Amino acid sequence: MKKESFINWMDMGNISIPNALLMNYTRLGLDEQEMMVLVHMHSFIESGNFFPTPGQLSARMTISAQQCMQVLRTCIQKGMLKIEEQEDTVQRIYSETYTLRPLWEKMIRLLDEENVEQQQEKQQHEEM
Amino acid sequence: MKKESFINWMDMGNISIPNALLMNYTRLGLDEQEMMVLVHMHSFIESGNFFPTPGQLSARMTISAQQCMQVLRTCIQKGMLKIEEQEDTVQRIYSETYTLRPLWEKMIRLLDEENVEQQQEKQQHEEM
Amino acid sequence: MKKESFINWMDMGNISIPNALLMNYTRLGLDEQEMMVLVHMHSFIESGNFFPTPGQLSARMTISAQQCMQVLRTCIQKGMLKIEEQEDTVQRIYSETYTLRPLWEKMIRLLDEENVEQQQEKQQHEEM
Amino acid sequence: MKKESFINWMDMGNISIPNALLMNYTRLGLDEQEMMVLVHMHSFIESGNFFPTPGQLSARMTISAQQCMQVLRTCIQKGMLKIEEQEDTVQRIYSETYTLRPLWEKMIRLLDEENVEQQQEKQQHEEM
Repeated sequence: MKKESFINWMDMGNISIPNALLMNYTRLGLDEQEMMVLVHMHSFIESGNFFPTPGQLSARMTISAQQCMQVLRTCIQKGMLKIEEQEDTVQRIYSETYTLRPLWEKMIRLLDEENVEQQQEKQQHEEM
Repeated sequence: MKKESFINWMDMGNISIPNALLMNYTRLGLDEQEMMVLVHMHSFIESGNFFPTPGQLSARMTISAQQCMQVLRTCIQKGMLKIEEQEDTVQRIYSETYTLRPLWEKMIRLLDEENVEQQQEKQQHEEM
Repeated sequence: MKKESFINWMDMGNISIPNALLMNYTRLGLDEQEMMVLVHMHSFIESGNFFPTPGQLSARMTISAQQCMQVLRTCIQKGMLKIEEQEDTVQRIYSETYTLRPLWEKMIRLLDEENVEQQQEKQQHEEM
Repeated sequence: MKKESFINWMDMGNISIPNALLMNYTRLGLDEQEMMVLVHMHSFIESGNFFPTPGQLSARMTISAQQCMQVLRTCIQKGMLKIEEQEDTVQRIYSETYTLRPLWEKMIRLLDEENVEQQQEKQQHEEM
């Protein structure tokens, strides 16, 4: 292996995916293709590109830009992804950014419900 | 959000995916479904389960155990995944474990080829 | 670089540290040495060693086993680390494990307080 | 826990530290304080700030800006950190950025030497 290859590898860095999401995305109603689009989105956002185009997503995937667009729309409809308007108050420039906040909110609700269920089961178990 | 939910979230931890892999898996001949199976495999291995069954993989995915089995076979055929035999020399117990080493080796080769190409382009550029 | 070196590197994996913790550990009353002990603890726990000895910690650090012991005690006293008793109900074996749950709970409280302050500032700003 | 706290937590993201580095930084001649400065540097660079000032580092640490400056100097002298000059060829603006490449190069050498030693031990073992 060339030294430069390893240095490049390190410079590109890693993306962290919460195991809680990896273990539960199907319960949120996501399939593998949608999950991969969201992982790519997460990676783009972390690297400072807050509004990747369908073309940029497609360049890293096996699906076309048009299919990427369709998956993005589905993710927004399912409430996993949101477009936010940003205003630069000084220069008065408007820009759009994607945010995964709706996905994290759905994960919170899922984890909370699970905890309630476990609590109830425990209580029922103790009452018996 | 319940405090317990957050604690659970933290306890489950994160899985790190190299951006170099995320940006190049299609060039290695992998599609999104195969990539997701390998991500799940990575997560299982990191958590200490070195030989997840198709059923365990399927439980976290939208595809059936049989389809998981098929994807695993394809990944092995494509040289991204390998089954290794482990021998516990003391107790003389044999066990099988999955390893993603072939995937990392393929990534090395890809990064090395890229570096060679860049070097050549640079050289041609300087000669002109 | 040898191919084996890279494969070893990948096999060892990564440890994820929340930026929220990295940016706020001093506000929790931790210094760099204590933070590093907790990072090592996190890494040991993730790799399946739930009760690393002071000697094991010291082997990866520049401080002695005795100093590690002292830092562990301080972290427990500061409420960042806890020892939990685990009971294997089948084999009736008791074991002790470290847990970083108190640290995550402290982080929650800090983040919550911050949100309250920001809300109050915003409100005061709007009332003016 | 407030929902906003969790969302903030997620937005801040994680920093990945290779376990190979965590297990070997002392063998590279680094102590805990230097390691923490490099971890903070890594976090700043990943978030897009390629030249954090000693003051910015100090704001997240228990040591003063002057001490941070001193640690940065030591890390550069030890060959773990480098300052690179970047030139924006279009606007002809020069800027300085920190890079951790020397650290990764030192890690490569360490891993390679280890592999050689293991190979030699294995060979000697087989010859006996």
